Amino acid sequence: MFYTLDDSIRVIVMPSVSEIGERALIQQIMKHLTPMPDMPIPFWDDASALSLGDGRALVINTDMLVWETDIPAGMTPFQAARKAVVMNVSDLGAKGVQPMAFMPSIGVPSDYSVDDVLELVKGFEAGAREYGCYVVGGDTNEAYDVIISGVALGITDEKSIMKRAGGAQPGHILAVTGAFGLTSVGFTHLLGGLELSNEVKKAALESIHLPNARVKEGIALAETGAVTSSMDSSDGLSVSLYDLRRSTGFGFIVDNPPVHPLVYEFAETNGLDPLSLAFNGGEEYELVFTYPPSEESNIKAALRAVGCELINIGLVSETKEIVYKQNDNLIPIQQGGWDHFTAST
Amino acid sequence: MFYTLDDSIRVIVMPSVSEIGERALIQQIMKHLTPMPDMPIPFWDDASALSLGDGRALVINTDMLVWETDIPAGMTPFQAARKAVVMNVSDLGAKGVQPMAFMPSIGVPSDYSVDDVLELVKGFEAGAREYGCYVVGGDTNEAYDVIISGVALGITDEKSIMKRAGGAQPGHILAVTGAFGLTSVGFTHLLGGLELSNEVKKAALESIHLPNARVKEGIALAETGAVTSSMDSSDGLSVSLYDLRRSTGFGFIVDNPPVHPLVYEFAETNGLDPLSLAFNGGEEYELVFTYPPSEESNIKAALRAVGCELINIGLVSETKEIVYKQNDNLIPIQQGGWDHFTAST
Repeated sequence: MFYTLDDSIRVIVMPSVSEIGERALIQQIMKHLTPMPDMPIPFWDDASALSLGDGRALVINTDMLVWETDIPAGMTPFQAARKAVVMNVSDLGAKGVQPMAFMPSIGVPSDYSVDDVLELVKGFEAGAREYGCYVVGGDTNEAYDVIISGVALGITDEKSIMKRAGGAQPGHILAVTGAFGLTSVGFTHLLGGLELSNEVKKAALESIHLPNARVKEGIALAETGAVTSSMDSSDGLSVSLYDLRRSTGFGFIVDNPPVHPLVYEFAETNGLDPLSLAFNGGEEYELVFTYPPSEESNIKAALRAVGCELINIGLVSETKEIVYKQNDNLIPIQQGGWDHFTAST
Repeated sequence: MFYTLDDSIRVIVMPSVSEIGERALIQQIMKHLTPMPDMPIPFWDDASALSLGDGRALVINTDMLVWETDIPAGMTPFQAARKAVVMNVSDLGAKGVQPMAFMPSIGVPSDYSVDDVLELVKGFEAGAREYGCYVVGGDTNEAYDVIISGVALGITDEKSIMKRAGGAQPGHILAVTGAFGLTSVGFTHLLGGLELSNEVKKAALESIHLPNARVKEGIALAETGAVTSSMDSSDGLSVSLYDLRRSTGFGFIVDNPPVHPLVYEFAETNGLDPLSLAFNGGEEYELVFTYPPSEESNIKAALRAVGCELINIGLVSETKEIVYKQNDNLIPIQQGGWDHFTAST
């Protein structure tokens, strides 16, 4: 709250959520909440967890999709509903947890067609079954826009949960499960009107319409017991690095940016910066994690067993800096991913 | 879907959700979902449940509040957020389950003030603490309207869950935990402009702005082990009776309608039907349940121990009829509560 004092008149200007941004808002929110004692995962992580009292924990996540602000043109109700599942199970995957159940709460206008509601339902069902869980209930409401709020939950051994603050140390390797930037390219096309080659267009739109969560990869990583920090990259790679810095207390040196090959091609044709496309995207569901160098072969084997190639992109650093190391230069990486409220990119 | 065939032209008219209503929509939805094996609570109940494999079940519920359609004028963000907690924990209470955690997912416009978000948060915190649970996480999003989607969950012995289909038999007593109709009176005032006496106005607006969930009452009832059917009355008393008929297979004879005394006063002054106000309201969070006559003293004592008076309102009948017995007349009770989509009252 800002005060402007002008003699006897005090004008109070209340900031809006767009003025402070999503993360500052969450910091304010936390001050008003009583933490549950003995939470297996502290606040500021991808998901919440409750101890079941027998060594197991319930891990749960909730995420909302709002049609007007979150769903790009051309996406079908089926795809939007499936994506709502992906968003939610991705956070469980990042904690190493198999989703058990999904519950959607939907709001639709009263003139929305029953057929479109059923397309949403088929998307929930398809997404849930794809990630090995069931739709176990939900809620329907009237709203002026299509709103999908989802809840995913699973049960796991409390000790196996991969936290953001899981013991990352300087010298640990920073890694990801896939390449970045295709969603940025797709949004550049959809929102900015830039034309794409057929190959790039297909890959970019598929990354937006039919994203995949890294659930089996997260479970495989958790089983190694070697991961020292983990989160998903749904708000963009650079935001993930800033979030991991908040939780681990350390910065990162990235020397192998995970840019998708098609992103290089697109960036060159259009005179754009491929690194910016890769770091500052969002709506990507790769895992970003750290592990001690001695565990590299274990980590690589665990991921390979589920069909995923380990991509090491850098190191946890002793400082708080988050930088890109190009030859001998250290270039700061700005936090430029997706913020629901400021929508800076 | 309706087909009109006109020679070679086939016109397909897709019904909207308002044309078929919420319950018919849910019936359609179910056809597209694979039920989870061994769910402790089947579909069509107040909440969902997952077996924890050791005799315990996780009971979980999700409900959404949309500002424009669900929040009456004069209600504050704090009250709306607290109500979102009440709506969700009420469903757990109806199953006899102590809420353990609450997670809100909110959508707000980007120009919404941080102060108002924090008022929402204080409402979540107050509501959660009031019902003995904690806010353990959540999600913030941009939306064109204020949307609150909540999740409440708790853990209980699987056998103690009070289901809608819990074994009600003809001759069992139909009972409620409180009187009905105050919210109807309040909405008549807020939406219809009818003036109220100060006493009625205070009680009616409080019933809307600061509703109470019957959680401790539900837990007390579950502990008797004598309840044969139970649900909350959030969509109105008559809708609850129709929902219980679907689940139990039996109808009801109501001979003691639970009309709030102030509702009689208001109805008389304004020439309205007090029974209609009491049966066809909504946003009321009493429990509607059945039990065998032999258990009456147990049930009464259990409720009294938590400060609630048992109100017997009728009997489970052998037929499928849902009727009000006035002297020797049987008058059908119509299903006239709240439907999100048709909004018939």
